[in-house]
Amino acid sequence: MNAVNLKQLAQELNLSVSTVSRALRDSWEISTPTKQRVFDLAKRMNFQPNPYASSLRKHRSRTIAVVIPEVANNFFALAIKGIETVAREKGYHVLIYLTNEEVAEEMAVASSLQNGRVDGVIVSLCGSTQDTRHLMELQQRNIPLVFFDRVADNFIAPKVTTNDCESGYVATEHLVQAGCRRIAHLTISMSLSISHRRQEGYVNALRRWELPEDPGMVVHCDGGEEETYRMLKELFMSDRRPDGVFASVEKLAVMTYHVCRELGLRIPEDVKVISFSNLVTASLLNPSLTTIAQPAYDMGKEAATMLFRRLEKKYIVLPDDQVMLPAKLEVRNSTMG
Amino acid sequence: MNAVNLKQLAQELNLSVSTVSRALRDSWEISTPTKQRVFDLAKRMNFQPNPYASSLRKHRSRTIAVVIPEVANNFFALAIKGIETVAREKGYHVLIYLTNEEVAEEMAVASSLQNGRVDGVIVSLCGSTQDTRHLMELQQRNIPLVFFDRVADNFIAPKVTTNDCESGYVATEHLVQAGCRRIAHLTISMSLSISHRRQEGYVNALRRWELPEDPGMVVHCDGGEEETYRMLKELFMSDRRPDGVFASVEKLAVMTYHVCRELGLRIPEDVKVISFSNLVTASLLNPSLTTIAQPAYDMGKEAATMLFRRLEKKYIVLPDDQVMLPAKLEVRNSTMG
Repeated sequence: MNAVNLKQLAQELNLSVSTVSRALRDSWEISTPTKQRVFDLAKRMNFQPNPYASSLRKHRSRTIAVVIPEVANNFFALAIKGIETVAREKGYHVLIYLTNEEVAEEMAVASSLQNGRVDGVIVSLCGSTQDTRHLMELQQRNIPLVFFDRVADNFIAPKVTTNDCESGYVATEHLVQAGCRRIAHLTISMSLSISHRRQEGYVNALRRWELPEDPGMVVHCDGGEEETYRMLKELFMSDRRPDGVFASVEKLAVMTYHVCRELGLRIPEDVKVISFSNLVTASLLNPSLTTIAQPAYDMGKEAATMLFRRLEKKYIVLPDDQVMLPAKLEVRNSTMG
Repeated sequence: MNAVNLKQLAQELNLSVSTVSRALRDSWEISTPTKQRVFDLAKRMNFQPNPYASSLRKHRSRTIAVVIPEVANNFFALAIKGIETVAREKGYHVLIYLTNEEVAEEMAVASSLQNGRVDGVIVSLCGSTQDTRHLMELQQRNIPLVFFDRVADNFIAPKVTTNDCESGYVATEHLVQAGCRRIAHLTISMSLSISHRRQEGYVNALRRWELPEDPGMVVHCDGGEEETYRMLKELFMSDRRPDGVFASVEKLAVMTYHVCRELGLRIPEDVKVISFSNLVTASLLNPSLTTIAQPAYDMGKEAATMLFRRLEKKYIVLPDDQVMLPAKLEVRNSTMG
């Protein structure tokens, strides 16, 4: 960095640094002609105040952090776009951190954010997070926190979610109405809020339609790709294989397609599939995939808006402001009767 | 922010701020017992040095910026993952900026990065960038710049690309060998390096196979979605419609699928399609899509690695270090003979 600094301006003008600084802040203590000289030179030398110097003065970094499990996933990519759009309008910068579903990474990120690097944090928890003390510490340092999608239930903070329980019910009922009787729920870590809400909706629908609740039909896929693929293969090869699949996340639907293809099972004839998904190609898959689509972009915008409301302190905000946006059922061929 | 600062430590210990500061830096000027008192209290009060204060001292922010056109796209999402992985290892923070293909946004971002907010920048140009003076200015301020994928040809900086010209040739030749005689090249802004390299490969293949070069077969889709859809519809409705399509970017292949579906054109029988793409669902599309897949994750890692080599100044690096990674042809049903 060899950007022009106050000191160089002061030397050039043969003034004290504090005079130059006050002149740039347009202080009444400095005479108009002096201010003019300072402004002119600052402009000519393309002087840019150092953001970290001013953040130290103002105790603000004009930066927020987004902490998410992954980015190569349409849901999170769209959410980032929503967050970045709002931050841009507010003149804020966005730091991005990927936890890769590792709580250790999430903790490392949280502690690196304790010391004033950011003014606020937007988080979607990773699958292995049980204890959220590392996030509590951020709040205790008055760094506002907003959760979206994967939220911490026993944590008082604003949250943006979709109606996961209701959507889980709708997805499962849709399979029942399409003629399925043995419906599997493919889910990720059950420590995630989205997982047990979607599971709750799934169970409610089974009860409402008086279908048996078979624990073997709830598959927790929180291992690696190979392991998940093996588990799904086992599920579909068993003599009591499901005739319907409710995938809690996109990648499990994609894997179900691959497994069914390998085993020669036809979708939807042998197995009907519905999934939470923001795949742009859902309608082009073979067969086209019935989805529960979350308003990912809007969720990101909403989370950022809630965070800035707190940062700007213009409004009164409840400590646990909750926004729930509706997800949308898109019926396609993978669940045709 | 109410983090503990040097002043509070000094008050607690009844020492001067400079003494505490020097003690924390383990200065020889401070006695061991005093240092011990300072260390103990700092630990007990969980004192964290302010990153901006230290970045001012060291003239380093330990932050890099990634400036890309979009994120809701598998290529860029994977590249970010690669960049973030390397930055994490180096203990750096990653700021992300989306230009949404608007050069005005790219310029605004560049000028906001001139003043020491970041130590280096990784860029993939937006479609409307003609003049790269705004990026030159960053370099002039000794902020190292690395380009990936969409690079500025007449700009001396390290660049990470794939073999676009060769890949364009391979894609086009593959269509010829599948029996196509009227091959369209769907491309985005021709001011992009990737566009004219892929176009060059396309033309080379036509010449090598002695096929006519029809300017009407090269469609520049740099407008909005509706306009692009309209242009493609026109192309496929004309009496001289193509029997093969080489899509330069993923979203143009996806649109081609939609347009063909609307017009009742069968892929691959009526139109064969190949595309540059990192779609995870390429093999599940109806029909499965033949792709030229770029090593997006590795490109991101490579770009970050080149940037850190410059920041660490451990190695001698050429001002215009170039890395070209091979893209891979994946033949699927959309180009079956």
